[in-house]
Amino acid sequence: MAEEDIFKQFREHSVAEFFKKNRQMLGFSGKVRSLTMIVHEFVTNSLDACEEAGVLPEIFVQAEELGSDHYRLTVKDNGPGIPKSHVGKALGQMLAGTKFHRYLQQRGQQGIGASACTMFSYLTTGQPTKAMSSYKGKKVTANITIDFKGNKPVVEVLGEEPTEDRGLTVVAEFKDVRYERSNYGVYEYLRRTALANPHCSITLVEPNKEQVVFPRSVQANPPRPFEIKPHPLGISTHDLLEFAKHNKENRKISAFLQNAFSRLSAAKVDELRTILPDVDLDKDPTELDWNEAEKIVKAFQQVKWIAPAMDSLVPIGKEQIEASFTSIFSPDVLVVTERSPKVYRGGIPFMVEAGIAYGGGLVGAEKKGEVMRFSNRVPLLFDSGGCAITETIKTLDWGRYDIKNFENEPIAVLVNLVSVHVPYTSAGKQAVSPEEDVMEEIKLAVMEASRGVQRYLSGKRKAHDIATKKKVIGRYVPQLAGDLATLSGDKKDRVEKLLTRIIEEKYQDGGDEDPETKQETSEESGGGEEE
Amino acid sequence: MAEEDIFKQFREHSVAEFFKKNRQMLGFSGKVRSLTMIVHEFVTNSLDACEEAGVLPEIFVQAEELGSDHYRLTVKDNGPGIPKSHVGKALGQMLAGTKFHRYLQQRGQQGIGASACTMFSYLTTGQPTKAMSSYKGKKVTANITIDFKGNKPVVEVLGEEPTEDRGLTVVAEFKDVRYERSNYGVYEYLRRTALANPHCSITLVEPNKEQVVFPRSVQANPPRPFEIKPHPLGISTHDLLEFAKHNKENRKISAFLQNAFSRLSAAKVDELRTILPDVDLDKDPTELDWNEAEKIVKAFQQVKWIAPAMDSLVPIGKEQIEASFTSIFSPDVLVVTERSPKVYRGGIPFMVEAGIAYGGGLVGAEKKGEVMRFSNRVPLLFDSGGCAITETIKTLDWGRYDIKNFENEPIAVLVNLVSVHVPYTSAGKQAVSPEEDVMEEIKLAVMEASRGVQRYLSGKRKAHDIATKKKVIGRYVPQLAGDLATLSGDKKDRVEKLLTRIIEEKYQDGGDEDPETKQETSEESGGGEEE
Repeated sequence: MAEEDIFKQFREHSVAEFFKKNRQMLGFSGKVRSLTMIVHEFVTNSLDACEEAGVLPEIFVQAEELGSDHYRLTVKDNGPGIPKSHVGKALGQMLAGTKFHRYLQQRGQQGIGASACTMFSYLTTGQPTKAMSSYKGKKVTANITIDFKGNKPVVEVLGEEPTEDRGLTVVAEFKDVRYERSNYGVYEYLRRTALANPHCSITLVEPNKEQVVFPRSVQANPPRPFEIKPHPLGISTHDLLEFAKHNKENRKISAFLQNAFSRLSAAKVDELRTILPDVDLDKDPTELDWNEAEKIVKAFQQVKWIAPAMDSLVPIGKEQIEASFTSIFSPDVLVVTERSPKVYRGGIPFMVEAGIAYGGGLVGAEKKGEVMRFSNRVPLLFDSGGCAITETIKTLDWGRYDIKNFENEPIAVLVNLVSVHVPYTSAGKQAVSPEEDVMEEIKLAVMEASRGVQRYLSGKRKAHDIATKKKVIGRYVPQLAGDLATLSGDKKDRVEKLLTRIIEEKYQDGGDEDPETKQETSEESGGGEEE
Repeated sequence: MAEEDIFKQFREHSVAEFFKKNRQMLGFSGKVRSLTMIVHEFVTNSLDACEEAGVLPEIFVQAEELGSDHYRLTVKDNGPGIPKSHVGKALGQMLAGTKFHRYLQQRGQQGIGASACTMFSYLTTGQPTKAMSSYKGKKVTANITIDFKGNKPVVEVLGEEPTEDRGLTVVAEFKDVRYERSNYGVYEYLRRTALANPHCSITLVEPNKEQVVFPRSVQANPPRPFEIKPHPLGISTHDLLEFAKHNKENRKISAFLQNAFSRLSAAKVDELRTILPDVDLDKDPTELDWNEAEKIVKAFQQVKWIAPAMDSLVPIGKEQIEASFTSIFSPDVLVVTERSPKVYRGGIPFMVEAGIAYGGGLVGAEKKGEVMRFSNRVPLLFDSGGCAITETIKTLDWGRYDIKNFENEPIAVLVNLVSVHVPYTSAGKQAVSPEEDVMEEIKLAVMEASRGVQRYLSGKRKAHDIATKKKVIGRYVPQLAGDLATLSGDKKDRVEKLLTRIIEEKYQDGGDEDPETKQETSEESGGGEEE
């Protein structure tokens, strides 16, 4: 193409066109994986909606085979539903929704997933996605597709009627997908979802009509994570200026700061005044310029802040992880740790919980050295190679914890990363980006848990050593008893009994496992030492 | 938040806001990596622009340290420049550009990178990015930032003047970045760029003012890859309908098909007519419906097509990879393979070339088992864990090729994936998605090269075995010669000489390397056997 013509080729594209061409970035690569990704997107949305509305989630998933690599998928929830005004955008417009801009721990955080499924269905079958949404007494049924050029939903309303139900049902056809009961299939995804979400009831109807129920084992939703304001340490100069520009409630920067940020009290404003004598905190926030905003952001770094509120982050929890691990693996030892909340990139709150199971049912398990990754209770099945969780676990010096070769040991490690914004490596949300602060906490959580396992292993080894010694010494008892009996004139039987008792007393723990280690299932959380 | 209020939180977001919040998806995570990513985005754009305009690229990169983790970066090229009308969009609007929609092998393919740098600069310093663009006799100087809400450029034109120069210079400040001469730094990135692009001259001025020149070693640009039409096998029903809907030149589907697709001749249309008696190929393309389009796409699968045109894909080339490897590693053996073009996802053309260097300078090298990844000549330094190239190489059964432990051997493997659309795992473009067809070709390319290395290694081992045998037998020569001399009455000297000659003749290759293996630097391409 001649130089003159290059800029005639200049075009602007929508985010829908981008993801249409780069569907692999949404996780749509491979037939089995694609179907799992679709279920993942719908189910996470359903769980978020139920929990936000305070409803105990009941999810129904059905995959019907219509032809070769061709399925109809139904996902039904008992959440609040979506109003008619929003159902098109929620399912047919990328980067639209209630999640992207909120500082709230949720499974979804992009406003892309459901629309990506509508896209994938339409691209592979030409069919719209059918939504039946029962919201506040009205049920709307609509067919939804996407106008790619404009990234806009195309909605055909099929019916409206009054209803006493609530919830959203989505029915869509897909080609280029496949149902399989493999490690990367829908079944495994839902099994792991149930594991981390015991308050959910999930029913799966497989293509062979087999119905699998993952029943609810906890009769209440987990505590609702609170939506928080941004932490002063997590804010960039640009963000601060944007917030200030759009501020309408406060006439003074000082008041604006207290309202816009968490942990920013009047006393902290006074501290800022001392640090920043040349910035007028009493002027109108809209008058803030870049220089002043940058100074404020720098001053934020010098103030001692209270950590982000604990209640903004809700982990799976020790009891639940213990219960799940016990039921799956029946391990010999089980240690769960929960770190206290930290921040990454200066101020985005997150926390890490980790569990390690060793031995027992894992000895015969097909997969050794298993890593089970979760973020905000969502199982991460794919892209393990590029994930900070896997990376951290694989590069840990396991030898320090008496685990010689992680890949070949009967060990399973669970890590759940909880955050108001999980730094995923791509829009497919299957791997965590290697942010330094996040990796450090994952490491500390896993190390803490490892120490518990090590105590068990070293106890077991000690017991083994003692038993060996006892056995070796025991071999000399008859001979020695005979010799001593001859020398002392005592009876051989009596001498032998005495000797045996002495050995038993000396090595009294030999052969038994240390009951203290055996019972241990947890470590104190927080305060982990660094390497 | 009460259920009633959830949908008050419903918002639509721009792709700029998305990447602002998820900068890690653009590769901006970590200080050293972020600076490398910025250089990467600007330099790839410069190289694409120069090559498209037929100019031998001369690139100048300077990083100046302004403060702690605070740098000014200048990137200057001798390309055609950008006209005033487009300079804002090219540097300040995401998903805009000349690349996204074209079927052309280029380094950039998204229209995101340069604007992402403008974003990163603005977010971390509040400063605009300065562009000086000399295009067709006019030099325009402008400051550019991004309006995130609208994903629109904000352009302040600082000056316009006539010029005889051409090219684009970009100057921008960044914080939260760091210059380091590490494996992941700017220096290494440019070194590898030079390795795969010997027609470029690259000058780097480091923060300590040291000037590094990677000189041009080939005095002509590589052949220009041709822009091609989509291959019939790479088209989805949705794409076909979109093309047909926007078709303005052709009144009949038959003519439209011939014009819109590569390798679709009149003879092939006749074949399609035979396969599709019930689809009227003489009607207007705009009247095509989903069902008919789907039938046509299915019929495409039944026709035997010529593979995509070779000249749409331009590899680095055997000579160049050999020259580069020799100059870096001085290896004992060096094998380069080039596979013939294939398609993935049904019809996106791609090809793989691979090179393996073994021994020589690699024996003393710090890094064993090195993998050097490239896509369209661009070095991929990051996200190796999630990359199809790394994955394929690490899981190869190297033992079959006499390479016992890849990670500990003096071996370096280069893979370059060439395609009109590389399936990257994320917008940061540092890892290749594990598409089955692509992984298969990578495997075959590396296996072919491995066989060459194996011949060398087995030759070397054979030589070693022979030398050992010779040495052992040699020990008996004096004694045997003496005994034989006594028996035969001959002179011991003469017998010893004769015996030595017999041994030398029998093991004549011992100790020497097989000259055939030594010289071998390539395998026949194509036709690789499967595992």
